[in-house]
Amino acid sequence: MHISELQDTLGRTYLERDRARGIDGTFRWLVEEVGELARGLRTGDHENLVREFGDVLAWLGSVANLTGVDLEEAAARYATGCPRCGRVPCACEPR
Amino acid sequence: MHISELQDTLGRTYLERDRARGIDGTFRWLVEEVGELARGLRTGDHENLVREFGDVLAWLGSVANLTGVDLEEAAARYATGCPRCGRVPCACEPR
Repeated sequence: MHISELQDTLGRTYLERDRARGIDGTFRWLVEEVGELARGLRTGDHENLVREFGDVLAWLGSVANLTGVDLEEAAARYATGCPRCGRVPCACEPR
Repeated sequence: MHISELQDTLGRTYLERDRARGIDGTFRWLVEEVGELARGLRTGDHENLVREFGDVLAWLGSVANLTGVDLEEAAARYATGCPRCGRVPCACEPR
């Protein structure tokens, strides 16, 4: 699936209700799902983890749609390697 | 860009150093970037927001690679509408 297809489908599915809720409330949902991802990492159930990653992607898409950010453009910085050092694999100082 | 292409490139770029850092340290980076996204939402600079969304996607990809999660599979739940009600647009109770 193209990133743009996902973002487009998320917009058709959720943008109206996301607008009604607003940016801050929608961002709060993103953070809630990141917390659920943390729990998923702790418990280790693979199928649950897949769901949590999906939910984080979905809410990230919602916030992107609300703020007019194109996730393809956002991802493009990483399309050919590390945006800091330009290399594959990354050759930055470990951090 | 396909979600799988992004995840694959992120793996070739970062997986070795992500493994050295470990899941918890890499998840910490994801949370740091979510915080930078929050700051970006507050300040409103569009180009900066695009960068922050990209960084969140990248670190999400890193955690997914470390935990063996296929982000295409994760995103697939949202490919045809709301996974809860099955509809486009979503018809769930507002929340």
